Amino acid sequence: MISVSEIAGRLKGEVIGAGDKEIRGVNSLDLAGPDELTFADKNYLSRLDQTRAACVIVPKEFAGPSSKTLIKVENPKEAFLAALYLFYRPEKPGPGIHPSAVIGENVKLGQGVAVGPCAVIEEGAEIGDRTVIEAGAVVGKRVRIGSDTVIHANVSLYHDVRIGSRVILHSGTVIGSDGFGFVEKDGIQIKIPQTGIVIVEDDVEIGSNVSVDRATFGATVIGKGTKIDNIIQIAHNCRIGQNVIIAGQSGMAGGVVIEDNVIIAAQVGIKDHVRVGKRAIIAAKSAVKDDVPPGATVIGIPAKDARVTAKEWATLARLAKKRAVGKPA
Amino acid sequence: MISVSEIAGRLKGEVIGAGDKEIRGVNSLDLAGPDELTFADKNYLSRLDQTRAACVIVPKEFAGPSSKTLIKVENPKEAFLAALYLFYRPEKPGPGIHPSAVIGENVKLGQGVAVGPCAVIEEGAEIGDRTVIEAGAVVGKRVRIGSDTVIHANVSLYHDVRIGSRVILHSGTVIGSDGFGFVEKDGIQIKIPQTGIVIVEDDVEIGSNVSVDRATFGATVIGKGTKIDNIIQIAHNCRIGQNVIIAGQSGMAGGVVIEDNVIIAAQVGIKDHVRVGKRAIIAAKSAVKDDVPPGATVIGIPAKDARVTAKEWATLARLAKKRAVGKPA
Amino acid sequence: MISVSEIAGRLKGEVIGAGDKEIRGVNSLDLAGPDELTFADKNYLSRLDQTRAACVIVPKEFAGPSSKTLIKVENPKEAFLAALYLFYRPEKPGPGIHPSAVIGENVKLGQGVAVGPCAVIEEGAEIGDRTVIEAGAVVGKRVRIGSDTVIHANVSLYHDVRIGSRVILHSGTVIGSDGFGFVEKDGIQIKIPQTGIVIVEDDVEIGSNVSVDRATFGATVIGKGTKIDNIIQIAHNCRIGQNVIIAGQSGMAGGVVIEDNVIIAAQVGIKDHVRVGKRAIIAAKSAVKDDVPPGATVIGIPAKDARVTAKEWATLARLAKKRAVGKPA
Repeated sequence: MISVSEIAGRLKGEVIGAGDKEIRGVNSLDLAGPDELTFADKNYLSRLDQTRAACVIVPKEFAGPSSKTLIKVENPKEAFLAALYLFYRPEKPGPGIHPSAVIGENVKLGQGVAVGPCAVIEEGAEIGDRTVIEAGAVVGKRVRIGSDTVIHANVSLYHDVRIGSRVILHSGTVIGSDGFGFVEKDGIQIKIPQTGIVIVEDDVEIGSNVSVDRATFGATVIGKGTKIDNIIQIAHNCRIGQNVIIAGQSGMAGGVVIEDNVIIAAQVGIKDHVRVGKRAIIAAKSAVKDDVPPGATVIGIPAKDARVTAKEWATLARLAKKRAVGKPA
Repeated sequence: MISVSEIAGRLKGEVIGAGDKEIRGVNSLDLAGPDELTFADKNYLSRLDQTRAACVIVPKEFAGPSSKTLIKVENPKEAFLAALYLFYRPEKPGPGIHPSAVIGENVKLGQGVAVGPCAVIEEGAEIGDRTVIEAGAVVGKRVRIGSDTVIHANVSLYHDVRIGSRVILHSGTVIGSDGFGFVEKDGIQIKIPQTGIVIVEDDVEIGSNVSVDRATFGATVIGKGTKIDNIIQIAHNCRIGQNVIIAGQSGMAGGVVIEDNVIIAAQVGIKDHVRVGKRAIIAAKSAVKDDVPPGATVIGIPAKDARVTAKEWATLARLAKKRAVGKPA
Repeated sequence: MISVSEIAGRLKGEVIGAGDKEIRGVNSLDLAGPDELTFADKNYLSRLDQTRAACVIVPKEFAGPSSKTLIKVENPKEAFLAALYLFYRPEKPGPGIHPSAVIGENVKLGQGVAVGPCAVIEEGAEIGDRTVIEAGAVVGKRVRIGSDTVIHANVSLYHDVRIGSRVILHSGTVIGSDGFGFVEKDGIQIKIPQTGIVIVEDDVEIGSNVSVDRATFGATVIGKGTKIDNIIQIAHNCRIGQNVIIAGQSGMAGGVVIEDNVIIAAQVGIKDHVRVGKRAIIAAKSAVKDDVPPGATVIGIPAKDARVTAKEWATLARLAKKRAVGKPA
């Protein structure tokens, strides 16, 4: 339990109301109980009196009356995130190698590494300090993993893949499977060996059931701080920049380049060798077949500037409606 | 072997032809052999004489002549399903814990539980009677699973997830990975801890390689009797109702609400916080960005009422054709 | 190290320049170092002098001056692939059963089979000569696998599935999960038992996190030489022909027939029971709801002949542009 005043102090916020209230945890506006803290940004201030929360973090500017104890801050969402970390700490297994885990020859394990039941670390792999390899995960030969990384249950890392520090890989994810490359000869597909690797840089998070293929030559790269959702395909030789966001079920074909801070919404497809410029935004379900300039927002199949696609959609809707009035379909 | 008469008795159907024929099994119209039973509903009656089956279940109304032995019933598909269950019983491993399985501390196992080779059940988990945990599956800390559930090989259940009774989870599926939530601060994405759980209610079936994320707060819920196909993403805090059907490769973003008996076809995407009303139907490949009223059928990118989209598609086809005639493109 | 002359001899090519140069390996045009070999087909000849490679494979016709040592051949891509196989040999684990692997009763293992740590082979399975079962893979009861096949880490094969020779299955892939079949009765979905199997023929490669469902009756079939990328759904009773290419995140519903040498690009969806004729091409993101004739190229949602869709897209773009000039939107 932490008092409202103490929380406000940590968040550099101002208390309006009962600063001595004791808070047990944090929760969403609709789920919070009478000893929990929540937050309301501008869009949710009207629902302030419906929450059962003991205390609500609100924007500084909020002037309205409220029966609730409030903490006023600059940025409620960021402050709430900080409050969340006061109460919630992801559970981490204690260090140690479970007796059922299999550790190959010449494996180097850092300080405080945890390896779960039936996990497999193959020969020559190196695992950094305090990294967690959960149950059933397979770490291939000569894989290098940094410190404080979490490899969740049943992840598969192919040989020679490199994973940074503070990385999170969720269950079922596969890093380093072969890129999809063949040469057709007389109607038969001949496999092009995939001789490269995958580099996942520091602070990356990758969701569950994601596939990242190794490069044909060189490396497929996921840049520092990039966050990847579930069931996503990153093909061979893609180069994803830093702090990129990729939402669920999107995919990019071979050799795609995504520059820093791009946002890719869900179920997007990107053609091979396309380059997406810094801070561009790709709307959900889009099919990107041409390079996207920095800062652009594109949408559609095929993807175009969002204003162009909006006009096309509006034009079609209007024509179809008109026809419906003028003459029978 | 069961005689046609006996099968007809169980199905409450009427035999036309040789009731004493012995049936070895059931099969589809095109694959059935001369000692097998099949069925033909209205659409397949014309192909009746092409099947090699010994006996065909047909609709009551069927009056046409046939060289086949028939069983006439109210609903051939339902009757055939009942017949199928007379012959086919999914193989179930005998009870017992394989010596290579790893059972954590304070795990509670019901009567007749089967745990396969190299499966891992972490501390504090509770498994109901006759539930099967197949090889390589990982059941996280404090997970609760009901009775008569089957967790197939290499499934991953994160900590604190709750799975009901008579549930089937297919291989590679992940329940309880972190929701995809970040707060951007100065171009860096800061992780929002995902403190909630997932609740999979009774009689749910989930296909292979599906990802169901845990809630940020509270629970992501899959309602009783809902059936989910393969490679589907259910994001944090989705609430899926009862007896919903979700076909392959569809995905829903955070906080989506799907009401009871909705049908979602394949490769559909649903925007965060959208609500889909009871018995609505969403056609394949649609991108749903607005609420769908109960009973509606929507289709398209973006999804609209099916009649509106049909008109738009027809309008565009007509205009493109006209132009082709009038002037060169 | 192999000399340029020797490589040229193997490739039946002609050396222009220093035949005695020693080559250490092969690489792409942009990544090759000063002791590596690369290739340039017609489209890349202009970049010939930018590569650091010691030697470049070029088309026979190439007449331009170059400071590089060249090997002239009929087909540079094919020749390069042959050169690649001179230097690169995929690493294969030595034969033997890891002591942590679990082998069920009545399992038959061929000569030189390798079974990795914590892999599970259930009773009655048969594995052909020199086949590799990697760590954490689960091979179900009575599964039959041919020779020289590689089953990567954490693959799941359900009971009775048949896998050919020289097949490669990447991690996280599931073969033989239940087809998605239900009969609705009073709003409740009743499972149709999936009694069939899956047959994966010789020389097939399947990427990571793919789901191939078993047939309701009979078999789901993937034909000889077919190559399947990552995160793909093949539903029950699909029949995929020989030498078919299926790119990432595509899916086909129940009973789809794909004839030989078809190319299916990424994120395509195909409706149940559709037939796609020989050598047809389906463009990325398409939704195929009608049969596709042999040799046709289709694109769009719904998919139409590529020329028809192109005309529709052009028509809409023109109309939207016109409106923008003529009057405000």
